[in-house]
Amino acid sequence: MKRKVTLKQIAKELDVSISTVSKSLRNSPEISEDTRQKVQAFAKLYNYRPNNIALSLKNKKTKTIGIIIPEIVHHFFATVISGIEQVANECGYNVIVCLSDESFDKEVINMEMLATGSTDGFIMSLSKETQQKKDFHHIQEVINQGMPVVLFDRITNDVLCDKVIIDDRRAAYEAVEFLIKKGFKKIALVTTVDYVSVGKLRTDGYTNALHDHDLPLNDDLVVKIEDIENCALKIEAMLQQQRPEAIFAVNELFAVTCIKQATKMGIKVPEELSIIGFTDGIISQYSSPSITTVSQNGIKMGRKAAKMLIERLEMEEEDERYRTEVIETHLVERESTLSL
Amino acid sequence: MKRKVTLKQIAKELDVSISTVSKSLRNSPEISEDTRQKVQAFAKLYNYRPNNIALSLKNKKTKTIGIIIPEIVHHFFATVISGIEQVANECGYNVIVCLSDESFDKEVINMEMLATGSTDGFIMSLSKETQQKKDFHHIQEVINQGMPVVLFDRITNDVLCDKVIIDDRRAAYEAVEFLIKKGFKKIALVTTVDYVSVGKLRTDGYTNALHDHDLPLNDDLVVKIEDIENCALKIEAMLQQQRPEAIFAVNELFAVTCIKQATKMGIKVPEELSIIGFTDGIISQYSSPSITTVSQNGIKMGRKAAKMLIERLEMEEEDERYRTEVIETHLVERESTLSL
Repeated sequence: MKRKVTLKQIAKELDVSISTVSKSLRNSPEISEDTRQKVQAFAKLYNYRPNNIALSLKNKKTKTIGIIIPEIVHHFFATVISGIEQVANECGYNVIVCLSDESFDKEVINMEMLATGSTDGFIMSLSKETQQKKDFHHIQEVINQGMPVVLFDRITNDVLCDKVIIDDRRAAYEAVEFLIKKGFKKIALVTTVDYVSVGKLRTDGYTNALHDHDLPLNDDLVVKIEDIENCALKIEAMLQQQRPEAIFAVNELFAVTCIKQATKMGIKVPEELSIIGFTDGIISQYSSPSITTVSQNGIKMGRKAAKMLIERLEMEEEDERYRTEVIETHLVERESTLSL
Repeated sequence: MKRKVTLKQIAKELDVSISTVSKSLRNSPEISEDTRQKVQAFAKLYNYRPNNIALSLKNKKTKTIGIIIPEIVHHFFATVISGIEQVANECGYNVIVCLSDESFDKEVINMEMLATGSTDGFIMSLSKETQQKKDFHHIQEVINQGMPVVLFDRITNDVLCDKVIIDDRRAAYEAVEFLIKKGFKKIALVTTVDYVSVGKLRTDGYTNALHDHDLPLNDDLVVKIEDIENCALKIEAMLQQQRPEAIFAVNELFAVTCIKQATKMGIKVPEELSIIGFTDGIISQYSSPSITTVSQNGIKMGRKAAKMLIERLEMEEEDERYRTEVIETHLVERESTLSL
């Protein structure tokens, strides 16, 4: 028996992208006739076996859920996996995890690998590169073949499927309103650059909260971080020039960096400066002072995603109606904000 | 086609453990004749297909590595996975991760699932329950079938295979010696109870370092934590009664808890109390003050494990000689220890 050739090997051999190989094998009109023929001939010659999910799905259940996420060093994704595991165990499903490392190609390869008989369906959060490319053909493909997909957190509106998200704009709004109600007027924002979608939504929440409470928007109080490397320097510069009463940071790394910089400059947290973060990870829990934060509730998000997927796997008839569930966030009050 | 029945379903149906089913199917003499026959008849009736790896291995490579670890909320395991991913990508392998959640049964089920055609070999760290039970038949089984296994960190000497470890005793010794060389004489230890193997080895390292430098071992300076819940209280009690000059903590949660308790009691870190932790995770990097720590070098451990596995997968002839590689640790000096 010949060895099975992979998508990646075909791409390398013919010097085209993985996406081109994948699309050629599906006869996509996006790819030129010539390339399609070349790829298909090569695949045939080397015994490439595409997914035959549609054929086998009704007969063979793997009782396994495939998870594809960008990375796991982030505590948030680890908690989502825990939530998925809980529900999967309750319902007798196994869980397999693959990482895209924020790469589009790895995401496609992982899906390809898992879709070929290893899993019944997918729970996934898109890689940065996939979001930039806006190429979702690999996801559409498995859905067309009858494998359900649930997207969470980093989703796209270009694919029709079940989704689980939090309302980032509203969560940020509530965090900033919490600071306003404590009497703070000079509130700084430490956020990402605008092309990061969740960063943009959280920035909108900050702006709206100021506006609704008749507070002026001061651009000098807004720090946009492109690169975590110079995060500390940019925060220090803002603290020196502006001396805000409070800061809203859009993730926990930014929040803890605010604390470290303030402490170095002799500014006491929370006595002289209150700080709220986003994402309730271990840094927020164990930093000194511990950080008041918006909890994204990763466990709940994972549980919900697993329930939606398993429901769809166990449906008697196909249902074309898809749902988008919004998970509630809440504020966890700790030591980094002044209690008045 | 009938649905494929799983190990778990057979166990449930016959009201025996998964381990009993697994052993019965392999005709293990540990299981009574009666049970073996019952399990085998049931498996046959319901089309249970055991792994036929030995038959197919030479012909069909999946180019996939299966990782089975206890959990991923721990930063250490996340970094090991990153290391494995790096080498796997360089060598054209995919990676699949499964979690045992510290459960023996889940570890067996995960191996079973991945061994049936999804992976070429395994990299794994044992669950707590597997270490307690000392039941390693599932690992021995896949090795016998020709699938290589590399164990890392939580290993056993009862299985012959490649292993990657750190020298916990020596690493702890060096951390304590570092404190002694700074001139500290009253050094406390915050460790786990003795049945946790790495905790025990690190405690030994502490004891040996004191002994070699003619410092007395004072039991009142040793705090053994059974349960993370009352960790803070036990540390507080010791700090109140003993007032050590320095503390060696066997993981980063214990270390950061020492800092929080000391700060609450008005003891300044590092001016009045130096603290060293173990495991260089994000808590150590982002706590205030940041924590001097023994780096376990998870990335390097993962890279080494992946190299050993891939080498074995690509060997022309089988090699019965197995290696145990010891990864070097090093001390990362940060703000929690006084620089003299």
